[in-house]
Amino acid sequence: MTLRMYDLAGADPARRFSPYCWRTRMALAMKGLPVETIPWRFTETQVLGALGHDKLGAPMHDKVPVLVDGDRIIADSWAIAEYLEDSYPDRPSLFGGPGGQAMARFVNAWGDAVLHAGLSRMVVADIAAILAPEDAAYFRQSREARFGMALEAVQADRDTRLEGFRQSLHPLRMVLRAQPFLGGATPLYADAIIFGGFQWARCVSPLRLLAPDDPVEAWRQRMLDLHGGLARAALGFD
Amino acid sequence: MTLRMYDLAGADPARRFSPYCWRTRMALAMKGLPVETIPWRFTETQVLGALGHDKLGAPMHDKVPVLVDGDRIIADSWAIAEYLEDSYPDRPSLFGGPGGQAMARFVNAWGDAVLHAGLSRMVVADIAAILAPEDAAYFRQSREARFGMALEAVQADRDTRLEGFRQSLHPLRMVLRAQPFLGGATPLYADAIIFGGFQWARCVSPLRLLAPDDPVEAWRQRMLDLHGGLARAALGFD
Repeated sequence: MTLRMYDLAGADPARRFSPYCWRTRMALAMKGLPVETIPWRFTETQVLGALGHDKLGAPMHDKVPVLVDGDRIIADSWAIAEYLEDSYPDRPSLFGGPGGQAMARFVNAWGDAVLHAGLSRMVVADIAAILAPEDAAYFRQSREARFGMALEAVQADRDTRLEGFRQSLHPLRMVLRAQPFLGGATPLYADAIIFGGFQWARCVSPLRLLAPDDPVEAWRQRMLDLHGGLARAALGFD
Repeated sequence: MTLRMYDLAGADPARRFSPYCWRTRMALAMKGLPVETIPWRFTETQVLGALGHDKLGAPMHDKVPVLVDGDRIIADSWAIAEYLEDSYPDRPSLFGGPGGQAMARFVNAWGDAVLHAGLSRMVVADIAAILAPEDAAYFRQSREARFGMALEAVQADRDTRLEGFRQSLHPLRMVLRAQPFLGGATPLYADAIIFGGFQWARCVSPLRLLAPDDPVEAWRQRMLDLHGGLARAALGFD
């Protein structure tokens, strides 16, 4: 049975821009598992709500990615990666062994706490601009409350913050000078984790985040080429 | 044949404070390999110089750790870890598989670029204070050139920078909330990498870097307990 995945979409249903959904898309491709993606928008709460309720009647799912595998419903990109590794052990490993699985958590945490935090301040107003009107209203209200200012103000000085953002990538750069992928000679889920952030930015913003001679940029290009150019073909900016 | 390791020492030869040497000490203990450590001070260049010269007559070694295993001489903590993994495959793995080895590089890079950079600004004057006079003079001159100011000035506002330092540990904290060690249920070399930094600080400074309720502090205590309390027994501050 084909796997199905709810995938965050913009006003154009072909624009799939969630960094967490990209982690899962790349993980599925690494496992060689076909997936039917279902575009889902921020305000379509009833769609995910229909997937199930807890004992108190509250919807169990309100965020994507959500993966549906037969009668199994799995939410959260990290939980999905572990589910895929456990459920499809004969496919290529996402982690390269138990040490890799344990350490991918550190990559995941760095991706969330450092990379995504930096990226969101660079592209958050661009995100609002690619959303359908009702989603943009929700997004603007919730994110402006979080940042304490207008999204345009968050993003306004991004050109001056670009240098600091690039410096924050230094650990990544050190690794990618020594080996082609975070996973070593070939990509693992750790690569999907970090790539998800860059693909998020690529799908919503024309901003050039990386210098052309940055080893991180060379790695991003390699990631865009994987799986027949899966991520390169996605609707976004070049 | 017993392994020998040149190990950075303070004025008291029992004070072994290098973060890189601690990475190697813990790696050797994880492999269950006994080691004879040889105290080495910053200005003892002739001691490492005696280990060999290149074709142009320059000494091949000027930094510790240096590991001597029979007729093999290996320098650099990362190279030593890979050497131990390759040379002693029947001992417990330092990496937990190829994925873990690849991703330990990311932990290593984060340790160098983020953790050590943050730590050095907190304890650099304390380091000078535990060195023998001739080493302290070398250390002060070389580090003050790097920082562009007196070591006491670098360290002066550490109380106000402590909060920012603790925030920089957030990726580590996220992982250690989910699992007891970076390596998962049991420690791997990734734990030795990060622990090396904290042990460096512990050996030179009474500064309390971590809040008592921080999951990173609980992990540090677990690391101090490993291998019969190897690191806890080291000369330092409690």
